[in-house]
Amino acid sequence: MFEKTPNCHFFTCGSSEGFTHANAQDGAQVIAKVGNANLIKLSASLPPQSRLVEPCPLPPGVLVPAAYAAISSDIPGEVISAGVAVAYPVDPSQAGLVMEYSSRGHKEDIEAIVRRMAEEGLKLRGLAVKEIRSISVQHRVEKIGAAFAAVILWDQK
Amino acid sequence: MFEKTPNCHFFTCGSSEGFTHANAQDGAQVIAKVGNANLIKLSASLPPQSRLVEPCPLPPGVLVPAAYAAISSDIPGEVISAGVAVAYPVDPSQAGLVMEYSSRGHKEDIEAIVRRMAEEGLKLRGLAVKEIRSISVQHRVEKIGAAFAAVILWDQK
Amino acid sequence: MFEKTPNCHFFTCGSSEGFTHANAQDGAQVIAKVGNANLIKLSASLPPQSRLVEPCPLPPGVLVPAAYAAISSDIPGEVISAGVAVAYPVDPSQAGLVMEYSSRGHKEDIEAIVRRMAEEGLKLRGLAVKEIRSISVQHRVEKIGAAFAAVILWDQK
Repeated sequence: MFEKTPNCHFFTCGSSEGFTHANAQDGAQVIAKVGNANLIKLSASLPPQSRLVEPCPLPPGVLVPAAYAAISSDIPGEVISAGVAVAYPVDPSQAGLVMEYSSRGHKEDIEAIVRRMAEEGLKLRGLAVKEIRSISVQHRVEKIGAAFAAVILWDQK
Repeated sequence: MFEKTPNCHFFTCGSSEGFTHANAQDGAQVIAKVGNANLIKLSASLPPQSRLVEPCPLPPGVLVPAAYAAISSDIPGEVISAGVAVAYPVDPSQAGLVMEYSSRGHKEDIEAIVRRMAEEGLKLRGLAVKEIRSISVQHRVEKIGAAFAAVILWDQK
Repeated sequence: MFEKTPNCHFFTCGSSEGFTHANAQDGAQVIAKVGNANLIKLSASLPPQSRLVEPCPLPPGVLVPAAYAAISSDIPGEVISAGVAVAYPVDPSQAGLVMEYSSRGHKEDIEAIVRRMAEEGLKLRGLAVKEIRSISVQHRVEKIGAAFAAVILWDQK
């Protein structure tokens, strides 16, 4: 449907305070270095044989598919976290599975949950898991804060 | 903007239990045979003269536009349903209208509601309705369950 | 990733009553003249040097990226508003920032808030603001009403 399926992906995350919930969320995306891209939210599967790459700068305004978790809070002192995980199948012809999760709580807990979600999802498909990778970030709210974690699908030569 | 507008569409639905709300939702999409695609949520109109086709397997990881209804619940015994409907106009140069609806309740009721929503939407545009098609699914929650119904826009020769 | 980044944008808004929340929302998009397009929700940045154009008719069923605010209510007499703002940077090589906001309340208040959100977002990036543009709409609910405001990214010769 779209002419091309992206051939690589990277993990990124960030957190921020902001003037409003939306600004805190925007700030967290700026910290994650995707604040100038236009993220298109996906359901989300990882295309087979998508290469894992280092986060790279995205051209400003570019439309880029992403699976992401985002949370914001205005309760001073509250700890919020966002995480994403990818379960990679042993069979390279199959899609990987991306899961995202955000909640109040510490990042270790949120990341453990989202890793398990990705693992269970691949099992549901009857696929053996080769590896699980994940990223997470936590934020202690001062006034209004947000946390953001993403897997970005991207295209590289 | 995107190089090509999809030329066909199909209906699909599914329901599932899962380890978490997200996993149940993922499972429902797997049952609906779109669990390995990357659904891009639309607002959503049906391109004029889009052909209705049988559900077809989607390449893993592919980005595919879709209008969908999704609901999950963790209340044992609760009945949840998701439905989508398309109102096709008599005038083939006009877009059809896709509506989606999900709620607690039985599928007959949810499907009747979403069909009426699509019909009313086409009337609002001053267009005569040629036909309404719909699909729905219901799920009785055991521990954590989800229901999912979609119209998938796709491209075929 | 997508072959082409849209080269222009326009502002639009609308409000409507409807048979359900979804129909009211659909009606508001029809009033805004994007009721037959498939809006893909963005995060959202404005591509550098994107030209501001007059609202133009979109081909039915077309997939079009958009940043939008939407709200609906079924409380008779309630006033709801939706607004979007773009902060344009002085530096033409940088992306602009689109913010959206919707809430109960009058449009003057909602539009002032969303303008400030866009301004703060550009400041966060260390960019000088050249100009802020915005649009907003308000609706007094009769039975079920909705308000919708958007920046549509589009491609023109």
